[in-house]
Amino acid sequence: RAKISRNRVLQIASAVVILALLFAVLFMYSEGVDFYTALYWAVITMATIGYGDVTPATPLGRAVAMVAAVAGISTFTALVSVLAEFFISSSLRRMMGMH
Amino acid sequence: RAKISRNRVLQIASAVVILALLFAVLFMYSEGVDFYTALYWAVITMATIGYGDVTPATPLGRAVAMVAAVAGISTFTALVSVLAEFFISSSLRRMMGMH
Amino acid sequence: RAKISRNRVLQIASAVVILALLFAVLFMYSEGVDFYTALYWAVITMATIGYGDVTPATPLGRAVAMVAAVAGISTFTALVSVLAEFFISSSLRRMMGMH
Amino acid sequence: RAKISRNRVLQIASAVVILALLFAVLFMYSEGVDFYTALYWAVITMATIGYGDVTPATPLGRAVAMVAAVAGISTFTALVSVLAEFFISSSLRRMMGMH
Ligand SMILES: [K+]
Ligand SMILES: [K+]
Repeated sequence: RAKISRNRVLQIASAVVILALLFAVLFMYSEGVDFYTALYWAVITMATIGYGDVTPATPLGRAVAMVAAVAGISTFTALVSVLAEFFISSSLRRMMGMH
Repeated sequence: RAKISRNRVLQIASAVVILALLFAVLFMYSEGVDFYTALYWAVITMATIGYGDVTPATPLGRAVAMVAAVAGISTFTALVSVLAEFFISSSLRRMMGMH
Repeated sequence: RAKISRNRVLQIASAVVILALLFAVLFMYSEGVDFYTALYWAVITMATIGYGDVTPATPLGRAVAMVAAVAGISTFTALVSVLAEFFISSSLRRMMGMH
Repeated sequence: RAKISRNRVLQIASAVVILALLFAVLFMYSEGVDFYTALYWAVITMATIGYGDVTPATPLGRAVAMVAAVAGISTFTALVSVLAEFFISSSLRRMMGMH
């Protein structure tokens, strides 16, 4: 079971990378900026830092930002949950003498 | 029990949507912006991103922002807690052979 | 035990309010702004939103901001932990037939 | 076991301090700012506040910011996980009469 959880952590990490690339491409086209600026925006947004040095000016770009906000929080919550489950399983196994 | 938790996740997700719409309307009236700008502000605030491209200028708008900040964190914490409970129940059932 | 956890949630909520007032007073004096602006800054900072419309300009004010950042995250983590403990105790009691 | 968890909380706290100093030095050199400004930027970034009053202007500085964003979230998640594990172990011991 511990192995399954480790795989799931990797799955979520992959999901974060794929989403960051996807949102970067969507932002690049809706806001007309270069890819590196769009990727920087996506990472700073999904990490919920939001400096405000790169922000969406168009209605479409703002829609992308709102979806990225929800996705960023969701994947973060998923990561926390999976780590919680991982430690709970380990604690339970240790408590019950199943080393 | 797993079903109850799934319902609770939906309840919290609904609460987030209703709060976002409520804060958007309050911000729209206190700051005199259009609904889409106010909704964009509410989502970016509740996600704790806070770009700073749309911020409250009036004392009333700042009060709305402070309440939205507390509400955003509370619903996020509620979501994390409910997901933690969901995974704990599942782990316990599996550990005790109640597949 | 569930009662103890409820008390602890209240304790942490009180700690957040006291810290917000304390950081607001420190920011008010180091940055020379009015109390309401300082309170708005403290809440937006401790919620990790950080719009950037009110930011410290002095070295002392920046030190206050750094301490508020660490305090905001700590109290948030404390709240998540206490809620996790609360739900774990409840789940365990229910699983073991201690309704 | 409770002792091990307390040590791990200290380990993670140390990791946060070391990472903040490391990112501050990297930002200081890539962006050409003084150490105190760079440290202020690192703390506000790793806390995911991101005021936007100090932001990277160079491609290298933006790469440092992206790594700091991921590191900030990772250490925060690690801290939450370790605290969750700590409270779970305590709850389990208490439930099973191992005071
Ligand atoms: K921000
Ligand atoms: K932020």
